[in-house]
Amino acid sequence: MNAKSGTPKKSLMLFSGRAHPELAEEVAKHLNVTITPQSAYDFASGEVFVRFEESVRGCDAFVMQSHTAPINKWVMEQLLMVDALKRASAKRITVIMPFYPYARQDKKHKGREPISARLIADLFKTAGADRIMTVDLHTAQIQGFFDGPVDHLFAQTLLARYMRENYPADNITVVSPDAGRTKLAEKWANELGGTPIAFIHKTRDPLRPNEVVANRVVGEVKGRLCVVIDDMVDTGGTIAKAVTQLLDEGAADVVMAATHGILSGPARERLSECGAREVIFTNTLPIPEEKRFPGMTVLSIAPLLARAIQQVFEDGSVTSLFDGDA
Amino acid sequence: MNAKSGTPKKSLMLFSGRAHPELAEEVAKHLNVTITPQSAYDFASGEVFVRFEESVRGCDAFVMQSHTAPINKWVMEQLLMVDALKRASAKRITVIMPFYPYARQDKKHKGREPISARLIADLFKTAGADRIMTVDLHTAQIQGFFDGPVDHLFAQTLLARYMRENYPADNITVVSPDAGRTKLAEKWANELGGTPIAFIHKTRDPLRPNEVVANRVVGEVKGRLCVVIDDMVDTGGTIAKAVTQLLDEGAADVVMAATHGILSGPARERLSECGAREVIFTNTLPIPEEKRFPGMTVLSIAPLLARAIQQVFEDGSVTSLFDGDA
Amino acid sequence: MNAKSGTPKKSLMLFSGRAHPELAEEVAKHLNVTITPQSAYDFASGEVFVRFEESVRGCDAFVMQSHTAPINKWVMEQLLMVDALKRASAKRITVIMPFYPYARQDKKHKGREPISARLIADLFKTAGADRIMTVDLHTAQIQGFFDGPVDHLFAQTLLARYMRENYPADNITVVSPDAGRTKLAEKWANELGGTPIAFIHKTRDPLRPNEVVANRVVGEVKGRLCVVIDDMVDTGGTIAKAVTQLLDEGAADVVMAATHGILSGPARERLSECGAREVIFTNTLPIPEEKRFPGMTVLSIAPLLARAIQQVFEDGSVTSLFDGDA
Amino acid sequence: MNAKSGTPKKSLMLFSGRAHPELAEEVAKHLNVTITPQSAYDFASGEVFVRFEESVRGCDAFVMQSHTAPINKWVMEQLLMVDALKRASAKRITVIMPFYPYARQDKKHKGREPISARLIADLFKTAGADRIMTVDLHTAQIQGFFDGPVDHLFAQTLLARYMRENYPADNITVVSPDAGRTKLAEKWANELGGTPIAFIHKTRDPLRPNEVVANRVVGEVKGRLCVVIDDMVDTGGTIAKAVTQLLDEGAADVVMAATHGILSGPARERLSECGAREVIFTNTLPIPEEKRFPGMTVLSIAPLLARAIQQVFEDGSVTSLFDGDA
Amino acid sequence: MNAKSGTPKKSLMLFSGRAHPELAEEVAKHLNVTITPQSAYDFASGEVFVRFEESVRGCDAFVMQSHTAPINKWVMEQLLMVDALKRASAKRITVIMPFYPYARQDKKHKGREPISARLIADLFKTAGADRIMTVDLHTAQIQGFFDGPVDHLFAQTLLARYMRENYPADNITVVSPDAGRTKLAEKWANELGGTPIAFIHKTRDPLRPNEVVANRVVGEVKGRLCVVIDDMVDTGGTIAKAVTQLLDEGAADVVMAATHGILSGPARERLSECGAREVIFTNTLPIPEEKRFPGMTVLSIAPLLARAIQQVFEDGSVTSLFDGDA
Amino acid sequence: MNAKSGTPKKSLMLFSGRAHPELAEEVAKHLNVTITPQSAYDFASGEVFVRFEESVRGCDAFVMQSHTAPINKWVMEQLLMVDALKRASAKRITVIMPFYPYARQDKKHKGREPISARLIADLFKTAGADRIMTVDLHTAQIQGFFDGPVDHLFAQTLLARYMRENYPADNITVVSPDAGRTKLAEKWANELGGTPIAFIHKTRDPLRPNEVVANRVVGEVKGRLCVVIDDMVDTGGTIAKAVTQLLDEGAADVVMAATHGILSGPARERLSECGAREVIFTNTLPIPEEKRFPGMTVLSIAPLLARAIQQVFEDGSVTSLFDGDA
Repeated sequence: MNAKSGTPKKSLMLFSGRAHPELAEEVAKHLNVTITPQSAYDFASGEVFVRFEESVRGCDAFVMQSHTAPINKWVMEQLLMVDALKRASAKRITVIMPFYPYARQDKKHKGREPISARLIADLFKTAGADRIMTVDLHTAQIQGFFDGPVDHLFAQTLLARYMRENYPADNITVVSPDAGRTKLAEKWANELGGTPIAFIHKTRDPLRPNEVVANRVVGEVKGRLCVVIDDMVDTGGTIAKAVTQLLDEGAADVVMAATHGILSGPARERLSECGAREVIFTNTLPIPEEKRFPGMTVLSIAPLLARAIQQVFEDGSVTSLFDGDA
Repeated sequence: MNAKSGTPKKSLMLFSGRAHPELAEEVAKHLNVTITPQSAYDFASGEVFVRFEESVRGCDAFVMQSHTAPINKWVMEQLLMVDALKRASAKRITVIMPFYPYARQDKKHKGREPISARLIADLFKTAGADRIMTVDLHTAQIQGFFDGPVDHLFAQTLLARYMRENYPADNITVVSPDAGRTKLAEKWANELGGTPIAFIHKTRDPLRPNEVVANRVVGEVKGRLCVVIDDMVDTGGTIAKAVTQLLDEGAADVVMAATHGILSGPARERLSECGAREVIFTNTLPIPEEKRFPGMTVLSIAPLLARAIQQVFEDGSVTSLFDGDA
Repeated sequence: MNAKSGTPKKSLMLFSGRAHPELAEEVAKHLNVTITPQSAYDFASGEVFVRFEESVRGCDAFVMQSHTAPINKWVMEQLLMVDALKRASAKRITVIMPFYPYARQDKKHKGREPISARLIADLFKTAGADRIMTVDLHTAQIQGFFDGPVDHLFAQTLLARYMRENYPADNITVVSPDAGRTKLAEKWANELGGTPIAFIHKTRDPLRPNEVVANRVVGEVKGRLCVVIDDMVDTGGTIAKAVTQLLDEGAADVVMAATHGILSGPARERLSECGAREVIFTNTLPIPEEKRFPGMTVLSIAPLLARAIQQVFEDGSVTSLFDGDA
Repeated sequence: MNAKSGTPKKSLMLFSGRAHPELAEEVAKHLNVTITPQSAYDFASGEVFVRFEESVRGCDAFVMQSHTAPINKWVMEQLLMVDALKRASAKRITVIMPFYPYARQDKKHKGREPISARLIADLFKTAGADRIMTVDLHTAQIQGFFDGPVDHLFAQTLLARYMRENYPADNITVVSPDAGRTKLAEKWANELGGTPIAFIHKTRDPLRPNEVVANRVVGEVKGRLCVVIDDMVDTGGTIAKAVTQLLDEGAADVVMAATHGILSGPARERLSECGAREVIFTNTLPIPEEKRFPGMTVLSIAPLLARAIQQVFEDGSVTSLFDGDA
Repeated sequence: MNAKSGTPKKSLMLFSGRAHPELAEEVAKHLNVTITPQSAYDFASGEVFVRFEESVRGCDAFVMQSHTAPINKWVMEQLLMVDALKRASAKRITVIMPFYPYARQDKKHKGREPISARLIADLFKTAGADRIMTVDLHTAQIQGFFDGPVDHLFAQTLLARYMRENYPADNITVVSPDAGRTKLAEKWANELGGTPIAFIHKTRDPLRPNEVVANRVVGEVKGRLCVVIDDMVDTGGTIAKAVTQLLDEGAADVVMAATHGILSGPARERLSECGAREVIFTNTLPIPEEKRFPGMTVLSIAPLLARAIQQVFEDGSVTSLFDGDA
Repeated sequence: MNAKSGTPKKSLMLFSGRAHPELAEEVAKHLNVTITPQSAYDFASGEVFVRFEESVRGCDAFVMQSHTAPINKWVMEQLLMVDALKRASAKRITVIMPFYPYARQDKKHKGREPISARLIADLFKTAGADRIMTVDLHTAQIQGFFDGPVDHLFAQTLLARYMRENYPADNITVVSPDAGRTKLAEKWANELGGTPIAFIHKTRDPLRPNEVVANRVVGEVKGRLCVVIDDMVDTGGTIAKAVTQLLDEGAADVVMAATHGILSGPARERLSECGAREVIFTNTLPIPEEKRFPGMTVLSIAPLLARAIQQVFEDGSVTSLFDGDA
């Protein structure tokens, strides 16, 4: 015979950047694999170096990184990992970004700005990414920024389920902290069985022309258990103010829930002191001890990620896990 | 001397597909140019043919098409025009789509769907488009679907200005017909000087489990002049129902305003009979006589397009015309 | 172990656009699969929507569409199907176009025209097509328009075989209806065992300067059974005139054979009344009842497509089925 | 002011590979420029080296090469010139290939062949070519192989005009040497005012089954002045045999005309001895003294190339010079 | 007239990232422009935001950034600036990186590593860079990593000229601190008029098998004024040890010269205490007060950059400034 | 079931250009396959034609070519083979270039030159190459020129091992023939257990201003067995002169070793007469009988190539074979 035949194998390998190894470890445990050993360190100049310690030839590579601060370093590290995998003949490369970096820069607000979320997608494509897996995009349209498959996992369901299991649904009002998240509030309302919704309307107050902006609650909140929801919390200013205002306007109690806890700067102080009964996040981003406080609950995203990875590896159906409707 | 020197010239040429020649003519008049003559016809098989009757070598080409029904034919015609310009050595090709086709398919709602709005951007890139000019995108993120400059003109300002000039602002409430346009309503409210806003909440009614979905108005509308706003109106079902419900809940009067009047199927009947005092559109899409009725006002987008083209041609600043904040 | 191993599977899935479901069904039966269920419909605006109802992750996708009128809609539908498959992680996507759309626009006849057949290839590449399968291209060079494998099936053999089996070969002359198909006529002549050939020469008649164009038959046709051949018949004008002229010049009988029956406008009338004894097509395009008439024979292309799909799926040799020599 | 302003200039620079410097010199003289000086030599290993001796920054570069033997070396030299121009910041690069290399490999004849003419287009695109200028492509579809403008000049008109001026048209029959050039013959016939045409049909002879192939002249040639036409002549076998056969079948006289004189191996001997009264070529390829003989006429393509370059540089209309209808 | 004509203008605009504004200011002064005003700040999350405060439409943009620590942030900021310029219709974008980031990762040392310097080139290409301008690449081959023009400026000449002007050349030996810079030393030797060269050979000492590595000076250094040269100095370990060893082996005096002063961690201490008489850098990277010490000389690269920018803008010849021979 | 399932197979197929069939045959024997039969010949015009005689659908293709003179022809032949494989649906295409063509043109020495080694990488990418396998690149940075995996095999180890086995190591000095190969010499020194190294310094002689260039040996060579090493030998001038000079300066004996024996023009004469005791090459390039002489040793690279191909096919680890540290 001219040719030499063989039977192809396929092998799932998990890789982790250095930003949030605990989440990767947890996913690895669920998948019953170990994270591929690598050397990764910073040169004195700040340049990142990575090398994998085992052959990755022909593998189905899943590369995890959590895009917490210093976020540009972790973006570059993940790009370098993808480049190394491409050049070392990995068969397929799935980039896992539980929190999609630069997601808020998804359009030009004024002229002469970047569309940074699109740039991120292009940079990973250029480095060699075949697919992206991510959780609760700031806007679902970001899926369209990548020229290839995007597995968009939906952790808001996880938060809503937790809510349903720990609070009575019949007195809940779902509140969007601004006009832009009303659709998400509606989604929550449906998950909780048809509750009312409300939102905070940032407005110029026509009666008091000297005070330029005021907030109005639109919808009924008096005597209700309000759940203020969002996809991410950064410095916590808007959402903490929303909690306070809801209590001021007679809400019986306020719970706050969001997928991504960025929690920069004064966030811990604001959230712990705003009067919310409970503050709920997932661990898409690391939330170290010093950012935590009593009343904060952190749900793990690892089981969801692990199931999705397993399905992708096996070409199974994952529509039940994924949801592009945010 | 070895080389032969010369002074470059630049020349603006305007091209128009066959979908809406009136708009192109109006733009041409504002620009003081004539539309470049072309042969464009359908073969018996339905295949479209185009040929330009004058040299386009080195020109700065602006290619207009309005994406009305039959929409796929007009998309293909514009793609063919771009291909012909590329192969005939046009220097720069700006595709003008006053209404961006397939804009509503801007994300995957469930699995195994296309992201058609991204596909449209890629098709025009492939054909040879250097830039896109468009008006009031369904979501501003679509700008990020194109790998190049997108001039995003904002006609909602035009509509709001008309409203301000024709109605007293102090009794207006801006109403979003569903939860997804609340942000746009907030923008209008600011344009009108800080009016209240409201929206229609589609919900499962927990009290009547057999009726799966009900609509609730969230916000104050009683006795107010309600402006129901949207970016586009297709069959008019949602928005006509919104008007009726607002009147039912005690609104003093209702006006409806949207940029893109697709007005398919029963739209004319629904809009003319829903009780709205005035219905306002622009002419980004052709609105033929048979779709019009008393009480419909159509504002022309041509002056805005002409100014933008002129600025692009002259490398002037156009940030005052453009706005990515939808 | 670090990695998780598995054995790859492969699975053939067949998809069909809405243009010609009968052909797809026939191919499915030959392959012993069923067409993957999908939702596909038109919005009121004319925008097409598609969604697949089953997981397509990892599949070897074959996407059929027949490019009949309204041709631009069917092109767009197939592009959207390919985009959806790419984003849903199909492993390989083969676009099946039994009749390649815009094939006649394969070069610039004059300046400032598109090369539409190249544009079609690029659009499908952009959407995500890995390969193209097609039948009897208008010119074989179109294969080179696509940057990837093109399986070019040859249905003229099917037609020639039918001719050989139903008519005595010794009195046949193969006739090209114009100067551009003479090479194809030569191919037929070889298939039929070395028959004479002729063609119709469109010429300015130097003797009668006022009648600008005349047709001359070049080659012997008197008393012969003439087979007029072509790759496609659109409105049927040229070929019907050829049949008439051959009978006028003494042909004993005339049969007409072509792969693609576009049959626009007056085609049915012209063909049924031109005097041809039999008119033979394949079903690469749908030929509905109202276009048929006694004396028309339609051969099915489905067995050929099914065999080719099977071979592509199994990495078998298909050179016997394919033929680039048109 | 923040910015520094200036007025752009443009400058035409002409570059020539080493294959046919005489043609480039002739073109330069018509354009009134001199060829940009360069170092170009072969390393002992056969690797080609090029360097331009003057700044090319910002120039409008026209890069000529004639693709004669050793053809692969001249292709590579031209690719290297384009790469050097790209990296040295030329503004626009037009590749001039009077004879398009590998044009005959424009489709797959059987399976598992390259489509070399498409590959050539892609290689030049990759190296940095913006545009291609070429003469009398083997098939006009090759224009569609390049993703950008192709200026397709038509030298057959030159040949036909020469014919018209030197021979009486009324007794001419235009003859295609095989079935594939019949369309070109028809074009000639129109140029000459509506002459008859004929072609040579290669056929299996059904009467003599042992002699597999015979040639038949289809059309009237007896007593006529036959012009055998083609786009190129390589070893001259087919065309010389055609001339002989035409004389055998009673042609009064035979002239042969083709654009590209490759004239490999026995071509000179065959052409000079076949009985043709005159043999006409252009100088798209160099025809050195040792390949010439009495009765050969070589028309210069330089004026046509120079006019086309001038028009491209000045963004003038060149449709009268170009013609895609071969 | 159909078209509208105009005369193109061109305008040079200078942009600066936040890493090293002093260098940009100095370049701006030499060019007699001001740096385009921009908003650039970090979100609390570490995400960078940029917006230009003036129209950049049609400009010839030069975007400076010095890639000092935190290097990944400055890379991302420059990528975002390029993306913003592309989307705001800048005509041409030249990325200026006086120190090319990740230049040391220009090949795979072992398997499964990235080639980070190539990745950097690809990232900037993807973002929209048309050209790169850089100084003294670690290896000249990095020019080939970018698919477009690279202007490679040569600051070693600056250093050598300073040396020549401040020290008597006749007693100088040029020393490479390791085997990899010997070629650069040879270049210096030529600049200085033909001085001897030497290098430090890192070797296993065969006589003392327990001490694995030793350094040997290869070449004559006794009684000589040694100039130890390199392209960059990071932590200063290798080069400081080289200085000490040269003094140990009898060098009369040692001067150290390098283009890029990264000067991480212990570099200041090592360099100031190694015994070198003078330590010379350029300001491609910022060298803040706390890293300086008596005996350190910093030459400005700004005049060289400004001249190069001016030439690029004017399409002038810059070969005298550029040099790829490092 | 909707889909049709199957088990994928994989099959290794070996292809060989016509430049050095003996090496391919040797590799095939080691792999226990036969080279896939093909038709490959030159047209009279010099155009190359290739066709594979067996189905290659779905295969893992390894395409060997040795880039010896006429090098441009062999480059084009390999490009055509890759194009044919791509269009015939090979699954993966690995281009094997034991000697990477144009490797010496890996940077711009002065302005307005190509970077030919990058161009080569891009040409193969364009044709369809997925991966490159090569031996002892002129500079390791060339790996970064290709956008994909490069398997860089290291034959210098082979040469060093031969040296170690045939000569006593304790008296060896490794000599670089110029300043650019000192690093390679250091690598050899380590392989041989820590020997001294030296190099030839090309310098202007300050004492004799009229003789512009002189060579100085830097390092100790008197009485030593000198091994002059390099990656390639073309005309042999530099290296033969180095051998002579070393003998002149008292070297006891000189051996010469290099991977690639290009051996153009006077190389055989120079090498055989320069005084070297042994001259060692590998067979990455064919070394025909007429270039050989007593004292020349040619080591086979075939076992190394075969092992690498086997590992790539099986997705095994090959880091032990590969080495990017040249």
